[in-house]
Amino acid sequence: MKDYIIELMNTKKYAQARKEVLEMNSVDIAELLEEMDTNNALILFRMLPKDIAVEVFANLSNENQMYIINAITDKEISYIMDELFFDDMIDILEEMPAIIVKKILKNTKEEERKLINQFLNYPANSAGSLMTIEYVGLKKEMTVKQAMEYIKKIGIDKETIYTCYVMNENRILEGIVSLRKLVVSDDDKTIEEIMDTGVIYVNTFDDQEEIAHLFKKYDFIALPVVDKEERLLGIITIDDIVDVIEEENTEDFHKMAAMEPSEEEYLETSVLTLARKRILWLLALMISAIFTGSIIHKFEDVLTSVVALAAFMPMIMGTGGNAGAQSATLIIRGMALEEIDLNDILKVIWKELRVSCIVGIILSLVNFIRLYYFQHVDIRIAATVCLSLIVVVIIAKLVGGTLPIIAKTLKLDPAIMASPMITTIVDAVSLFVYFSIATKFLGIA
Amino acid sequence: MKDYIIELMNTKKYAQARKEVLEMNSVDIAELLEEMDTNNALILFRMLPKDIAVEVFANLSNENQMYIINAITDKEISYIMDELFFDDMIDILEEMPAIIVKKILKNTKEEERKLINQFLNYPANSAGSLMTIEYVGLKKEMTVKQAMEYIKKIGIDKETIYTCYVMNENRILEGIVSLRKLVVSDDDKTIEEIMDTGVIYVNTFDDQEEIAHLFKKYDFIALPVVDKEERLLGIITIDDIVDVIEEENTEDFHKMAAMEPSEEEYLETSVLTLARKRILWLLALMISAIFTGSIIHKFEDVLTSVVALAAFMPMIMGTGGNAGAQSATLIIRGMALEEIDLNDILKVIWKELRVSCIVGIILSLVNFIRLYYFQHVDIRIAATVCLSLIVVVIIAKLVGGTLPIIAKTLKLDPAIMASPMITTIVDAVSLFVYFSIATKFLGIA
Repeated sequence: MKDYIIELMNTKKYAQARKEVLEMNSVDIAELLEEMDTNNALILFRMLPKDIAVEVFANLSNENQMYIINAITDKEISYIMDELFFDDMIDILEEMPAIIVKKILKNTKEEERKLINQFLNYPANSAGSLMTIEYVGLKKEMTVKQAMEYIKKIGIDKETIYTCYVMNENRILEGIVSLRKLVVSDDDKTIEEIMDTGVIYVNTFDDQEEIAHLFKKYDFIALPVVDKEERLLGIITIDDIVDVIEEENTEDFHKMAAMEPSEEEYLETSVLTLARKRILWLLALMISAIFTGSIIHKFEDVLTSVVALAAFMPMIMGTGGNAGAQSATLIIRGMALEEIDLNDILKVIWKELRVSCIVGIILSLVNFIRLYYFQHVDIRIAATVCLSLIVVVIIAKLVGGTLPIIAKTLKLDPAIMASPMITTIVDAVSLFVYFSIATKFLGIA
Repeated sequence: MKDYIIELMNTKKYAQARKEVLEMNSVDIAELLEEMDTNNALILFRMLPKDIAVEVFANLSNENQMYIINAITDKEISYIMDELFFDDMIDILEEMPAIIVKKILKNTKEEERKLINQFLNYPANSAGSLMTIEYVGLKKEMTVKQAMEYIKKIGIDKETIYTCYVMNENRILEGIVSLRKLVVSDDDKTIEEIMDTGVIYVNTFDDQEEIAHLFKKYDFIALPVVDKEERLLGIITIDDIVDVIEEENTEDFHKMAAMEPSEEEYLETSVLTLARKRILWLLALMISAIFTGSIIHKFEDVLTSVVALAAFMPMIMGTGGNAGAQSATLIIRGMALEEIDLNDILKVIWKELRVSCIVGIILSLVNFIRLYYFQHVDIRIAATVCLSLIVVVIIAKLVGGTLPIIAKTLKLDPAIMASPMITTIVDAVSLFVYFSIATKFLGIA
């Protein structure tokens, strides 16, 4: 289908291409334009009916939005900016270079320009930067019939009409009423009679992660945003929250692999940026590994007298690291989903202690059978390795289970206490345990 | 607030407690009941007005739902089951032991019982298991006015009325119309004139992950589910998809830390289950580490002649593992978000190659300065360590970047190629590189 339309455009069968495109969803049209060469994309874009063009524009990549804005007339820009949902426009402006922002602002109305500037100043990831101003506001004295007529008149331009907001003359939020409630209620009831009071709302500076939690907890499709005086400023809708949830998860994945989080797509990120996001943690962890090295250095005599011990180091360090990373991941994820909080630390310790005993003993037994019966390793070395394994697994799981909680207590992001950090810490501990036990068992001093 | 109500219940001030509770959101009431002792919770639950009781019930934990069902009368069960949204009821039944399911089914109407049995047979994580049958169906001959009157009559029982589904006499889906469109359209237009045709839908057996992608891509709030003959069976709503997104993310976090994924909350999972989910991967990775051990064994002579080499092993293995895990995480996450696909493998290799050269050289330089100028390590050893670092980082990033894509080509879940697996592979490679270079540089043979 896409290839067919691209072919039509290449052979200049524009009318036919336009006809085919008009059957498509605007998200898919945007995807198609991304795949065309920019010249054809621009031709096709300008052939779209205006209302569809606006929707397609909102779904294009920043690069193509910029290209189009540079190419079209001021009148066309003005139309697109007028028709875009306010929060989409803010998203677009935030990503554009200053010169393009200037061109766009030149083509918006004075009053809107003021609002835009206000919105651009909200911190990234705050409620203010997520909200839209296109909501339906009602008064509590209205009847259901009046409200429905009002919505009919203005509803088409609002981002959502499914939740309406009831305010007094000072724009203080007094209640909400869903369109469902309006539709099923009698015409002559007043809004005051049917509205929900105990409204849950957020403030402009609240963090998007907390807001996403509210949506998940209460199954909202929209949530009002108020200022310090509880005046309604805007609303946040579920489609933006779905993106926030994925963004927050991506951030955690990145942090848990010891990188600075990135919002850009991998393939679109420059090599230098990628390197920059990775180098700091790699350096920090590399330098921490010096400590592990110094433990080996300290036990060099043990290693010199029984060089065979070296062969089991990777297994013990690796198993310890993996065991610790499992616990850390479960706890970090549990905290992100608000299933585990700071008060649960003792429960976590007790649980990890029992799990690690079971897991440690099984790993150790399997290993003993392999070493002693199959590889005929000296029994004292086999015992050293297996006892070390149990101790290391227990310590690793306790470290992995508690460090993320301790990090949170210290107001650090628990996600930094994930696999790479735990592995580095457990490496040092593992070797210390291993060589200490070896010294005892093998009678080296 | 919660403590106050619990106190009221403990001192048997039931009327006062009831009054306080009725001010609360039903999600919060459910949370409150979870914190009370079960006896008080049951008393308070039975004092709630029926419509609120149903909403609270849907938000309780399975344990408390079971406890309540066991304690209340058949008539009360029957009421709750009637009023629950169909998909919530299915979710509850899926988690209950057979004896409770029997008790519940006894109290539902015959026709509903059939439907329930059909729903319970859809595979977990399929569109069928997510959908609800409570949607608004319209006919295309209806006028807007007729449609609105129809919705007014039946809308209160439907999970969502914001998207309505237009079907012909054989229940084949012909189009959708949003309530917004209905509200802003003229009364005497027909549904056919205002409905959207090109409807995007899914089949009952489609996987929830793909469905979540559709919601994210098109910003839907509901999506129709059809059978093979394109007959409408039900709809999936955004609130359930938000849960699916978090579930899929949790699954990836667990897999990427080498565990079998779990849907249960950590604190509610038994120690044995936790141990079982972790032991297999730990065993597999432990046994793979034997290979790394055998590399050390092979180079034992090198190690014996220059024991100082041992001290740098953890740093080289650790840095390699971390560097590989960074790349693997970026690629796995990129594929999960459908930003990277199988055809991008060459782009990924080229990108990782450049990033790893930059990162490897910086790490190596920092390390050389430390070793040679500060710790006065023999220059040949310092050179061995630093050259190894560069080679290991490059290999690690190429392995980390490509293995997830290769896994996907082989129809495996890319998430298993995360940190633990990459670390285990890179450990072996690192030591081989390190000792090979050492052999050359230090003239040991």
